[in-house]
Amino acid sequence: MPGLKEVKDAAQRIAGVASRTPLVESPALSRRTGKQVYLKLECFQPIKVFKIRGAYNKISRLSEESVVAASSGNHGIAVAYSSHLLGKKATVVVPETAVREKLDAIQGFGAEVVKAGTLSSEREVKGRELARANGSAFVHPFDDPEVIAGQGTCGLEIAEQLSEFDSVLVPVGGGGLISGISISIKAMKPETKVFGVEPMGAPKLSAALKARDIVTIPSPHSMADGLLPSRMGELTFAACIRNVDGVFTATEDEILGATKCMANEARIIAEPSGAAPLAPLLFHPRDVPGKRVVVVVSGGNISQALLMQILA
Amino acid sequence: MPGLKEVKDAAQRIAGVASRTPLVESPALSRRTGKQVYLKLECFQPIKVFKIRGAYNKISRLSEESVVAASSGNHGIAVAYSSHLLGKKATVVVPETAVREKLDAIQGFGAEVVKAGTLSSEREVKGRELARANGSAFVHPFDDPEVIAGQGTCGLEIAEQLSEFDSVLVPVGGGGLISGISISIKAMKPETKVFGVEPMGAPKLSAALKARDIVTIPSPHSMADGLLPSRMGELTFAACIRNVDGVFTATEDEILGATKCMANEARIIAEPSGAAPLAPLLFHPRDVPGKRVVVVVSGGNISQALLMQILA
Repeated sequence: MPGLKEVKDAAQRIAGVASRTPLVESPALSRRTGKQVYLKLECFQPIKVFKIRGAYNKISRLSEESVVAASSGNHGIAVAYSSHLLGKKATVVVPETAVREKLDAIQGFGAEVVKAGTLSSEREVKGRELARANGSAFVHPFDDPEVIAGQGTCGLEIAEQLSEFDSVLVPVGGGGLISGISISIKAMKPETKVFGVEPMGAPKLSAALKARDIVTIPSPHSMADGLLPSRMGELTFAACIRNVDGVFTATEDEILGATKCMANEARIIAEPSGAAPLAPLLFHPRDVPGKRVVVVVSGGNISQALLMQILA
Repeated sequence: MPGLKEVKDAAQRIAGVASRTPLVESPALSRRTGKQVYLKLECFQPIKVFKIRGAYNKISRLSEESVVAASSGNHGIAVAYSSHLLGKKATVVVPETAVREKLDAIQGFGAEVVKAGTLSSEREVKGRELARANGSAFVHPFDDPEVIAGQGTCGLEIAEQLSEFDSVLVPVGGGGLISGISISIKAMKPETKVFGVEPMGAPKLSAALKARDIVTIPSPHSMADGLLPSRMGELTFAACIRNVDGVFTATEDEILGATKCMANEARIIAEPSGAAPLAPLLFHPRDVPGKRVVVVVSGGNISQALLMQILA
């Protein structure tokens, strides 16, 4: 399991590639919720999503000349982009149903796209198979110490950017981001609470914390398409059990409401996965402890069609 | 003419009402332009626009119990909101053609709306007449020392938030914002250049700087509906002649492009008037001196219809 030292090493490695994104108070959201709401704007990253932190940190340390990833979206874009910068060949296994915009982004950075099935498990099997056949490294989207350490740089920055705060709300997919952030925050601000936020249709972390074991969600579903892995990883489960203070589930209506509020009130375009952590603050503010709350807006890769729908 | 002292006094007066808005680097815009682009996010203000700074500063100093403003938009909302907070009665003279959204905002803060003609000159005549008849104070949108000092707090914050920068790009309507900002910046960072940006269809400042006198633009027009006054004021002209280093004009296509780029790349929803100062950086980057450039994103009051059009 990475610790603060590994996160700090990652921060040096990714400097100049991933951005040190702004952490800003949103007066509109503060007024709306009666708290002081700070947004960590990962939608300002190159490729508009935090995933570049972990992917670049991982790939920059590989000796292999080529990498394979299985992804339907942001992780694939991050691996393609990082590989492009590092002069490595990337192959991304995507679902048969992948949307044109995502394929364009992946191929735009020179990665090869391979289609396989519709389930994440099918993609992972295919990806690992390709990696073995070609002597490539398989880059897991979250269950990897270097990936977690990379995502942890987001928490390191938060702790450096804001001297005092009570809670951090982090969206949970496979748990890479919250694992990394919680490692940094608990090391640097041990009194600060770290909460996960996940869709009610994909409650991996809630189920895992309750069972105190990894639980597979049979058919995860949500408009927050970055939060759909069916289970936590071994490492991310271990980090969350140790560090995470609780988890909120958000309904689809709440995620939609949070995405709209980010656009209409905070004037920030976030993808539903990136707006989801605002949902507890909007709809259950008294359940979020403390006055000063950081919301990790993990990404802004929303399709034009969905954005139009949200603003309509 | 107000100086830095008056701006600092205004900052104390408006504290807790207007927000100290974030100044953030946009890595997306920095990459796109090859500069370091910092956004001063006035779209994060209450009422989503900088106008609250000047209106509240002015109205808080009035002995009159009631105020009148002539406005088709943001100034009217700012006067209504500030009056509401200060317990004064506000009347806003709007054009016959005013859109529902703006009227709702003004009336939502308890102000009375009076319709008069379609030209800003007709509104001003009517507003001054009403003020005289009722013993109310008339609050000019820009040509007033207290309004200018209030807008100057935006420049004060920029100079406090960023230690070194080369240029500031400010949208120009009647010149209140650029007057205030330039007073602060020239006092605190005399080596920094301050540039205005105005629509090609409403080039009041360009014409005034060229003629070295106030020039009336016969029929100003632009999608940037906050930048349509037909002439500079006496005070704003005097401040700009002294402090402003130059002015860029932007075509409608460039303003549209800048508004789209703010949304699609920087992930910030700005109104066209607020995105306009990005236009020279996008379309004529070599004309903007220096490496570190601040763009004053003056507001985010864009109608839903226009926003949909821009994102489509």
